[in-house]
Amino acid sequence: MTADTPQALPTSTRTVFFVSDGTGITAETFGHAVLSQFEMRFRQIRLPFIDSIDKAHDAARRINEVFSVDQQRPIVFSTLVTPKLSAIIRAANGMHMDLFQTFVAPMEQELGVKSTHTIGRIHNTVDTEEYKNRIEAINFSLAHDDGQSHKNLAEADVILVGVSRSGKTPTSLYLAMQYGLKAANYPLIPDDFERGRLPSALPEFRHKLFGLTISPERLSQIRNERRAGSKYASLQNCRYEINEAEQMMQREGIRWLSSTTKSIEEIATTILQEIKPDRNNS
Amino acid sequence: MTADTPQALPTSTRTVFFVSDGTGITAETFGHAVLSQFEMRFRQIRLPFIDSIDKAHDAARRINEVFSVDQQRPIVFSTLVTPKLSAIIRAANGMHMDLFQTFVAPMEQELGVKSTHTIGRIHNTVDTEEYKNRIEAINFSLAHDDGQSHKNLAEADVILVGVSRSGKTPTSLYLAMQYGLKAANYPLIPDDFERGRLPSALPEFRHKLFGLTISPERLSQIRNERRAGSKYASLQNCRYEINEAEQMMQREGIRWLSSTTKSIEEIATTILQEIKPDRNNS
Repeated sequence: MTADTPQALPTSTRTVFFVSDGTGITAETFGHAVLSQFEMRFRQIRLPFIDSIDKAHDAARRINEVFSVDQQRPIVFSTLVTPKLSAIIRAANGMHMDLFQTFVAPMEQELGVKSTHTIGRIHNTVDTEEYKNRIEAINFSLAHDDGQSHKNLAEADVILVGVSRSGKTPTSLYLAMQYGLKAANYPLIPDDFERGRLPSALPEFRHKLFGLTISPERLSQIRNERRAGSKYASLQNCRYEINEAEQMMQREGIRWLSSTTKSIEEIATTILQEIKPDRNNS
Repeated sequence: MTADTPQALPTSTRTVFFVSDGTGITAETFGHAVLSQFEMRFRQIRLPFIDSIDKAHDAARRINEVFSVDQQRPIVFSTLVTPKLSAIIRAANGMHMDLFQTFVAPMEQELGVKSTHTIGRIHNTVDTEEYKNRIEAINFSLAHDDGQSHKNLAEADVILVGVSRSGKTPTSLYLAMQYGLKAANYPLIPDDFERGRLPSALPEFRHKLFGLTISPERLSQIRNERRAGSKYASLQNCRYEINEAEQMMQREGIRWLSSTTKSIEEIATTILQEIKPDRNNS
């Protein structure tokens, strides 16, 4: 359901707006964090790219429309850096949670400087080194997914290892996308266990290997979604592979963690803590 | 430089902490948004997974250490849902920007319910449908990168088209990772231009095609980083391909946008606005 045709909602459901002069990703992250503390359902409407007076008036009109239909103030999470645009939104009939309005003024006082009030500075723009590095990291991680290439492994910031479907691929891509890390990943397969050795491309990069493991039950469930009833997916085979992989990682002194109950965000953050790359700049 | 050995910084550089009981991604997003409004350099220290009294005391000690070394209050962006942990951090010598402390109480009043004060609820956990959908979307997007597979294109939420290196791959992965959308992507190549027709797998899915274009100059620059001096990268060839691709998209009635000066976040948000998937739940 979009907001083009507002309809009355059960009174237990509130409408929430995310209003931003950019993509709205910060407004959504901020809003979701606050909303996650309430056991309620929310109808969510995203209003990105509100970067002119006209668009701000349009947005305010949509907020007011929802107010008349819902007979309840919508919650409005906003990240508008321009005071003029922010004021137009805050004049609408909503409950306003304004990130900049709330935090920028105290920061100005603390730092003894004025803020720039610059639209769209939140995310790095396409001309910066940081942005280019991120895109390069994504390309690197894709090219080095699932052991596809041994080339340039020396450039990797981290090489994830683990059995098939232990969570390596989404974690690598997340590390690249969110943190600009060149994250390769390499599978540990039954051949490696029979030889009792790491794949031959890896030992020289031992210091940047990081292992992922997973409970055999969960692994079997995930593999069955792909190849139902196969030996590959059987609990017995999953137990064998996980046991061998964990023994190998222990023997080789590879740090590892279990992805069984962790989200890719949690896994990536934990790995980042271990790697601790230099991050002195904003 | 990590915070293990604090060193005095030039007085123009402030130290910033991101303190969270989870991954710290929300604290960082929130903090970066506020910091982006100031033309200064900041030294950033991430303290995730602060989910016990002991860890909170450790974190507070690190904040105090930085205060004594810097001779300036560090800025502390925190997302701690437990009042007890939050209080320990706020007792440290810093300038505190506490997301929950600031916004949850007014929300409780507005909604007439108490918040749950539940740690780690910000990001969907691995057991939810939403999380499974995201992982499935990432796998789908990877399997359908660069026209690798025609299988299950009917399942795609969106199919990006455009010439090689116009930004399709990172955008598809971002749409999957951030929004759980199954985003396939399909290259438009010189063969297609000679035939004057879309690749044969695509016309039946016209309603979910979305085009990316890019300026020939920027494209040539990007391609030269890959294959310096090649015909593929030459400005002349880039002009030809872009011209043909734009004509084809126009003729076929495909919506498109230029990625030249847009970040993947901006491209993805714009596409999402066009697709407008159902998002009624929090």
